[in-house]
Amino acid sequence: MGQLKEFEFIEWIRQRATADARVVTGVGDDTAVLAATTGPLLLTTDMLVDGVHFDLSRVEARDVGWKALACSISDVAAMGGRSTAAVASTALPQGTDEGAAQELVLGLLECAEAYGVCLVGGDVTGTAGPLVVNVALLGELAAERPVLRSGARVGDALLVTGSLGGSLLSRHVRVQPRAEEGIALARDYGVTAMIDISDGLARDLYHILDESGVGARLESAAVPLSDDAVSMAERSGRSPLEHALADGEDFELLFTLAESDAVRLLSDQPFGVPVTRIGTITGTGAVLVLADGTEQELARAGWEHAI
Amino acid sequence: MGQLKEFEFIEWIRQRATADARVVTGVGDDTAVLAATTGPLLLTTDMLVDGVHFDLSRVEARDVGWKALACSISDVAAMGGRSTAAVASTALPQGTDEGAAQELVLGLLECAEAYGVCLVGGDVTGTAGPLVVNVALLGELAAERPVLRSGARVGDALLVTGSLGGSLLSRHVRVQPRAEEGIALARDYGVTAMIDISDGLARDLYHILDESGVGARLESAAVPLSDDAVSMAERSGRSPLEHALADGEDFELLFTLAESDAVRLLSDQPFGVPVTRIGTITGTGAVLVLADGTEQELARAGWEHAI
Repeated sequence: MGQLKEFEFIEWIRQRATADARVVTGVGDDTAVLAATTGPLLLTTDMLVDGVHFDLSRVEARDVGWKALACSISDVAAMGGRSTAAVASTALPQGTDEGAAQELVLGLLECAEAYGVCLVGGDVTGTAGPLVVNVALLGELAAERPVLRSGARVGDALLVTGSLGGSLLSRHVRVQPRAEEGIALARDYGVTAMIDISDGLARDLYHILDESGVGARLESAAVPLSDDAVSMAERSGRSPLEHALADGEDFELLFTLAESDAVRLLSDQPFGVPVTRIGTITGTGAVLVLADGTEQELARAGWEHAI
Repeated sequence: MGQLKEFEFIEWIRQRATADARVVTGVGDDTAVLAATTGPLLLTTDMLVDGVHFDLSRVEARDVGWKALACSISDVAAMGGRSTAAVASTALPQGTDEGAAQELVLGLLECAEAYGVCLVGGDVTGTAGPLVVNVALLGELAAERPVLRSGARVGDALLVTGSLGGSLLSRHVRVQPRAEEGIALARDYGVTAMIDISDGLARDLYHILDESGVGARLESAAVPLSDDAVSMAERSGRSPLEHALADGEDFELLFTLAESDAVRLLSDQPFGVPVTRIGTITGTGAVLVLADGTEQELARAGWEHAI
């Protein structure tokens, strides 16, 4: 693989971007042109940096490309939205070979295809520092209204998809955003608030509570622990529950909905991944109910980027 | 100024993002929610890296924020579009103080306000490398159709806004994208192809020629030389024309239009910045006509990022 040339690389990407009725003009002009849509638009962006969000000495460039887009798809899902079109930028370390740069793009395209997203443009530059990948993603609403963090109401049930904790062991790279789940929760189950768990259960729950001006009782015994949380606990000296509360990058959906809708959802279990009730929204305070019935204030643990 | 905390910083930004009827939900949820629009959407992204696109030891963080958004506004203008909403991401070097990070955002917001753009979301992370800023920008069309690079026709006149060359001396930081000019050119003068000059006149002209499958005669004596091109030539040993052809980051508009429309535009001179005819679109080949009437093939000079 030779030295990478900017314009040749863009042409290479252009040849691989899939044609789609939603795209009037894709890669290769000053901007992409997308077909008109009806309804509100969702827009989000995520920046991933080698050494912070992934470790290039341990993961493949293709996985990094996948993850860069998957993180944003997860955000759109958490609004009850469907991801449609993305632009991606990358700063490639000096001397990055053509093959690695292409692998990065192939990972992006692979994720785009898996989730029905069109990659419509981007930017490529060099850097004296670590690899940086940025994705900006457009989406449209699947339900009438977006599901905000601020919609939780006292008495709502608190639920989560999948299982939590220890994502660093495996799941944090080939992130599987809950795209169809987010849409169905918004459209069919009237969820009142939703967030994707990127900073850790405790911190992301606080995001909902702070924005909604409510509290919660979180039943620790109900929190679905991933196998990875259990494995990590064996080495870390912390409990699997602590990992589930504080590890980030689960990319599961944390959401609230009316008691009756929760009962219906739990009975339906409509997804390939389980949904679990882990608590209840209250008027004020965030209480962690331990397995022995004792209660403590939920610590605002979780992932905050040190800058 | 203290150590920067991610969530406090996002809250600080949120308080400064301007309310706007086009924004249903801005900074602070999983994605932004934008009011429904009619017509096609434009989407573009630009990534700027310290040491490549700017030099933080010589420019202010506020100017970097401005430039990050201004580059994308220039791209939207080159489609004949109006910029509407942006998301911005940044990777801040370890130990970046709160003040510098805030200045970066203030520069973004200043540019957003100057050009009627809403900053609706973003992402903040750390990095072991240089500062990186990424902007993704949405726009809408001002005319019925987007102005593509591929629309130039044989016999069209070739024109440019402003003057070219030597942008590194001053203009490359507080970039003034030709936003209103791009809209008026598309809406009122029927321009057939357009690009913003970021890679240099020669290379960006080739982008139009390659995409349109045409050639051009470029009259070197007609190329409007900036004062900066003249100043740089005094030191560089190259001619002002060479600077105008090969220096990047002019962020002027290079465009083609029918002869009759060109005559009308040149007579109107409707902008605060002059428009100048610099050549004609031909069937094939890119010819540079020198001041003495001799002709040579236009070199594909200009800025290509070394990666």
